[in-house]
Amino acid sequence: MKDYRELSREELLALHRETEAKYEEVKGKGLKLDISRGKPSTEQLDLAEGMLTVISKNEDCYSDAGEDCRNYGNPTGLKEAKELMGAIMGAPADQVIVCGNASLTIMFNTVSRSFTHGVLGSTPWAKLDKVKFLCPVPGYDRHFSVTEYFGVEMINVPMSPEGPDMDLVEKLVAEDDSIKGIWCVPKYSNPQGYTYSDETVRRFAALKPAAKDFRIFWDNAYGIHHLYEEEEKQDKLLNILEECRKAGNPDMVYVFASTSKVSYAGAGISAVASSPANLEEFKRYMGFQTIGYNKVNQLRHVRYFKNLDGVMAHMMKHAAVMRPKFETVERVLEQEIGGTGLGTWTSPRGGYFISFDALPGCAKAIVAKCKEAGLVITGAGSSYPYHRDPQDSNIRIAPSYPTSEELALAMDVFVLSVKLVSIEKLLEEK
Amino acid sequence: MKDYRELSREELLALHRETEAKYEEVKGKGLKLDISRGKPSTEQLDLAEGMLTVISKNEDCYSDAGEDCRNYGNPTGLKEAKELMGAIMGAPADQVIVCGNASLTIMFNTVSRSFTHGVLGSTPWAKLDKVKFLCPVPGYDRHFSVTEYFGVEMINVPMSPEGPDMDLVEKLVAEDDSIKGIWCVPKYSNPQGYTYSDETVRRFAALKPAAKDFRIFWDNAYGIHHLYEEEEKQDKLLNILEECRKAGNPDMVYVFASTSKVSYAGAGISAVASSPANLEEFKRYMGFQTIGYNKVNQLRHVRYFKNLDGVMAHMMKHAAVMRPKFETVERVLEQEIGGTGLGTWTSPRGGYFISFDALPGCAKAIVAKCKEAGLVITGAGSSYPYHRDPQDSNIRIAPSYPTSEELALAMDVFVLSVKLVSIEKLLEEK
Repeated sequence: MKDYRELSREELLALHRETEAKYEEVKGKGLKLDISRGKPSTEQLDLAEGMLTVISKNEDCYSDAGEDCRNYGNPTGLKEAKELMGAIMGAPADQVIVCGNASLTIMFNTVSRSFTHGVLGSTPWAKLDKVKFLCPVPGYDRHFSVTEYFGVEMINVPMSPEGPDMDLVEKLVAEDDSIKGIWCVPKYSNPQGYTYSDETVRRFAALKPAAKDFRIFWDNAYGIHHLYEEEEKQDKLLNILEECRKAGNPDMVYVFASTSKVSYAGAGISAVASSPANLEEFKRYMGFQTIGYNKVNQLRHVRYFKNLDGVMAHMMKHAAVMRPKFETVERVLEQEIGGTGLGTWTSPRGGYFISFDALPGCAKAIVAKCKEAGLVITGAGSSYPYHRDPQDSNIRIAPSYPTSEELALAMDVFVLSVKLVSIEKLLEEK
Repeated sequence: MKDYRELSREELLALHRETEAKYEEVKGKGLKLDISRGKPSTEQLDLAEGMLTVISKNEDCYSDAGEDCRNYGNPTGLKEAKELMGAIMGAPADQVIVCGNASLTIMFNTVSRSFTHGVLGSTPWAKLDKVKFLCPVPGYDRHFSVTEYFGVEMINVPMSPEGPDMDLVEKLVAEDDSIKGIWCVPKYSNPQGYTYSDETVRRFAALKPAAKDFRIFWDNAYGIHHLYEEEEKQDKLLNILEECRKAGNPDMVYVFASTSKVSYAGAGISAVASSPANLEEFKRYMGFQTIGYNKVNQLRHVRYFKNLDGVMAHMMKHAAVMRPKFETVERVLEQEIGGTGLGTWTSPRGGYFISFDALPGCAKAIVAKCKEAGLVITGAGSSYPYHRDPQDSNIRIAPSYPTSEELALAMDVFVLSVKLVSIEKLLEEK
């Protein structure tokens, strides 16, 4: 395909007429499509039907240790649930706490606790003039929303396929003791699908932050969410807990994960793994905050998945549903945008998203164009703190939720919108 | 029975020898008994077996509105769950938010949010020099622990069978704008089993606090936890939400409840009901804190209990288990302590506790004596802020968890311990 940026005004005008006609045709269909959120599809949720009845009688409700999971007690979670989540997260069971449905809640509570009670004896952040977080961008909107809610100043750090710009991270945390944390989605990142390189992980573990209460919020949300069964097509991530320990920084990282995209997004279990000292702080907090999370649901997960092998076998069923959807997105982008110079995109081997970078200044208009034709996409700018994409370029594509047919239609709308808006932009500049 | 306080030294010594012999005999049995926590018994938990399988197939997982409860969305809870919890709490569904397993967590989060973000625009409590809460005593230890964790200064307010001393409450909140809240268990209170009188509720609703951000934390944990089926034997509580609205103070109260002692203590659902303005604040916070609580579990509760009638019918099954246990405690106390002057106790018609007041200065020693003979009781002082019972007199008896046989044994140990410690105290004073 010819690079649109090299076309004459007349050629662009002709393409615009042609594209607009196609767009109006699609728009006339009155579509209602949504590729905005990383939600599992019905087909994926249906995979775990057996979990609904794996605990079905009174006598099923007891843990291996004989605890009645229906009753009070054990606010940090069942031992066998810690083992299961620990296996997923690369942590020994005694360095894991298992909680309720949403790992986002654990992250939020961790920030909240740091504000009211500090971190391992540090000054509560609420008493500081300024608290800052580093935010690799583009990144996960709900991370940034948490820190925004607490009035944290967020500093953008550019992402590359290797992970965040570590030169910048090292420099900033070393010189500014008001920087208290960094948000990371280290594997199959949201929205790019990048996995941090071994060197990136080691440099994280070896950080020398000026703030003793600096913490890495390592949200390994997609740690086992491969698209391919073949091991050589699966990304590998170094174990940050081990690397931090080896580097003499055992307390510097919190690792989060959940089964939101393993079992149920609306009825899963979540967990945090960290150093013994950090976990003591979590436990103390939870001792006041709760009489315990839903232990029957923890037991459901353990009984249904049994162990890491069971989980991984289940993830391959997810992969079989997800893979063709990712391939559809990439095929349409390659066919319709490839070579036009109108955009670049990532090709993840796992996770839930594809990141698309349009010509600067076009993202908002593209999302609006899509909406006009009945396709909802995550708001442009959402993947940046304060929803401000300085380039107005990044768009997150979430292919999981629609059916394959809907997704193909959605991608038609998307590429037509990209072309239309981009051509108009190029015409403006002529 | 003769009043021990009127006995001669010789008579007391004789009684002491006799009691000690019995105590040593019981102690020799090597018992392991626990009446320390308000935990439902296995028999009670077994009542809800049908809830485990009421959602058993993929197609069962949809709400009335057609939401897939297994997926993301709807952080404030299913409409039908709001209706069910609203019916239990005396609130319209649109004034209810349904959350996870523990209502304690909603209360904790509410205090935490007030510290970091204030209350409807007020100064965040973390920025104030002093924050105080009123604590009706004796009361629920875990309430007091929450405010202690946040460094709140707690002020004792005496309880009577009508509720807290409202003269004192009215005076204190009117004159001190650092008083930001009061902890209430208004029905079948923990630990007395008292229910606030209509006048008490109306005086609460009509409070004129100096602090605009003063809130009543109305933990209606035992609102439907009657011991008797006959309506005339059930306590009634005025609806605080309605009374506050009528009094022009709609925002002054948060009402909390859960199904911990309806379905499962370790896998229930919880809820908060309040004014529209307050709920907006909860919703905004939750919008950052969670992607949603376990909606499949909410649906389980709705499908299993169906409506308030279903819940009340189920509560009568609980009552049939609980009633004989309360009657055992009261019978033993009446037989063994009645007329001795060694203690007084409450006779609740619902809830989970009986409150026992020993001779001043005896509670700690009685609990220790019980422990020595293998009976665990809630630590003396637990029902007071900072675990300080100024009289060292109050002991909370929780009869629900042990079997009837265990409970009878436990009460033997208890009354022997009361007698032994009390006689020793009386002898000291002779």
